[in-house]
Amino acid sequence: MVVGKVVSTVVSSRKYDSLQGLKLLVIEPFYGSNKDYFIAADVIGAGIGELVLITKGEMTKYALSKEAPVDAIVVGILDKEPSF
Amino acid sequence: MVVGKVVSTVVSSRKYDSLQGLKLLVIEPFYGSNKDYFIAADVIGAGIGELVLITKGEMTKYALSKEAPVDAIVVGILDKEPSF
Amino acid sequence: MVVGKVVSTVVSSRKYDSLQGLKLLVIEPFYGSNKDYFIAADVIGAGIGELVLITKGEMTKYALSKEAPVDAIVVGILDKEPSF
Amino acid sequence: MVVGKVVSTVVSSRKYDSLQGLKLLVIEPFYGSNKDYFIAADVIGAGIGELVLITKGEMTKYALSKEAPVDAIVVGILDKEPSF
Amino acid sequence: MVVGKVVSTVVSSRKYDSLQGLKLLVIEPFYGSNKDYFIAADVIGAGIGELVLITKGEMTKYALSKEAPVDAIVVGILDKEPSF
Repeated sequence: MVVGKVVSTVVSSRKYDSLQGLKLLVIEPFYGSNKDYFIAADVIGAGIGELVLITKGEMTKYALSKEAPVDAIVVGILDKEPSF
Repeated sequence: MVVGKVVSTVVSSRKYDSLQGLKLLVIEPFYGSNKDYFIAADVIGAGIGELVLITKGEMTKYALSKEAPVDAIVVGILDKEPSF
Repeated sequence: MVVGKVVSTVVSSRKYDSLQGLKLLVIEPFYGSNKDYFIAADVIGAGIGELVLITKGEMTKYALSKEAPVDAIVVGILDKEPSF
Repeated sequence: MVVGKVVSTVVSSRKYDSLQGLKLLVIEPFYGSNKDYFIAADVIGAGIGELVLITKGEMTKYALSKEAPVDAIVVGILDKEPSF
Repeated sequence: MVVGKVVSTVVSSRKYDSLQGLKLLVIEPFYGSNKDYFIAADVIGAGIGELVLITKGEMTKYALSKEAPVDAIVVGILDKEPSF
């Protein structure tokens, strides 16, 4: 999983039906040199600026209540910035 | 998922039968430092120059109506450039 | 698989139920130029500072006793730093 | 999917039985800054120097007629270099 | 698939039972700019210094005789260095 910060949302009127009801968030990776934004689905209500935990790939299916073409999803909201 | 811009199409006469009927788009990643083009299948009619949302990996199967060896597919067309 | 060092833990009160009981570790890759931290689940009791072996992607499912959206998991603790 | 150029072949006498009958091609990525060669299986007869379309990951299974540990496979041969 | 050179082995006494009997090899990528070592399982007897073909991701399951959390496995030993 990766830690990321919620930057904004993506609006897409023309999309697969199975994506309806999933908020699409623009995520900025929290760690590391690669800060390329990516898009993650969210159903637990993460807000702009929050740090979230994101699962990628096929294991996202265990966070979805229906079959949807989603390859990244928010699975947790961090209580605070990780220490190290 | 990633956001990308539709750059052009790929033409392949000799290909797997299961790829017939899938438009193959050359995609330029919208975010980040890695601008390497990749190819995504499309069945929702994205046009050249449009910003699209793309799902990669095995979860593409939920966007396909048949079994096909496709590892990237357009799942949405953005209404506008994401703000941040 | 990759070798990584356990750096710290991630605390998330609001997360998927299926993630309960899985410790979430911040991992620093041991090899190579890309030292971007990532998060791995752990059920075998790896401690801070230990070198661990991590499996990523869908094959993590064979290290989980339940269906959970986890894309990286500790599958072994190294006896010592690998030689080469 | 990615576009790549067929560079050469790989010869391996000691390999999994399920890989028998699959030609193993060395592929040079066509697009982008990362030109690291990789290996793709081929059953449609791509020749040295040709531009091909390659699917990676688990979706390769839909291009295989048997169960084989293959994570990249040629799914099409391009008619010409893509324009953009 | 990728070509890699076997560098050494990893020793882990505390690991998942399903990993017992799988030799864990440290692999140096043969091609390209990214030389980050990774770990691959091996059941075909690759030796230190040999060039091997490695499959990553979920398709490794077709090279395993049991369900194990392995995301990279040696599927062939090269007869010689690939030419190009």
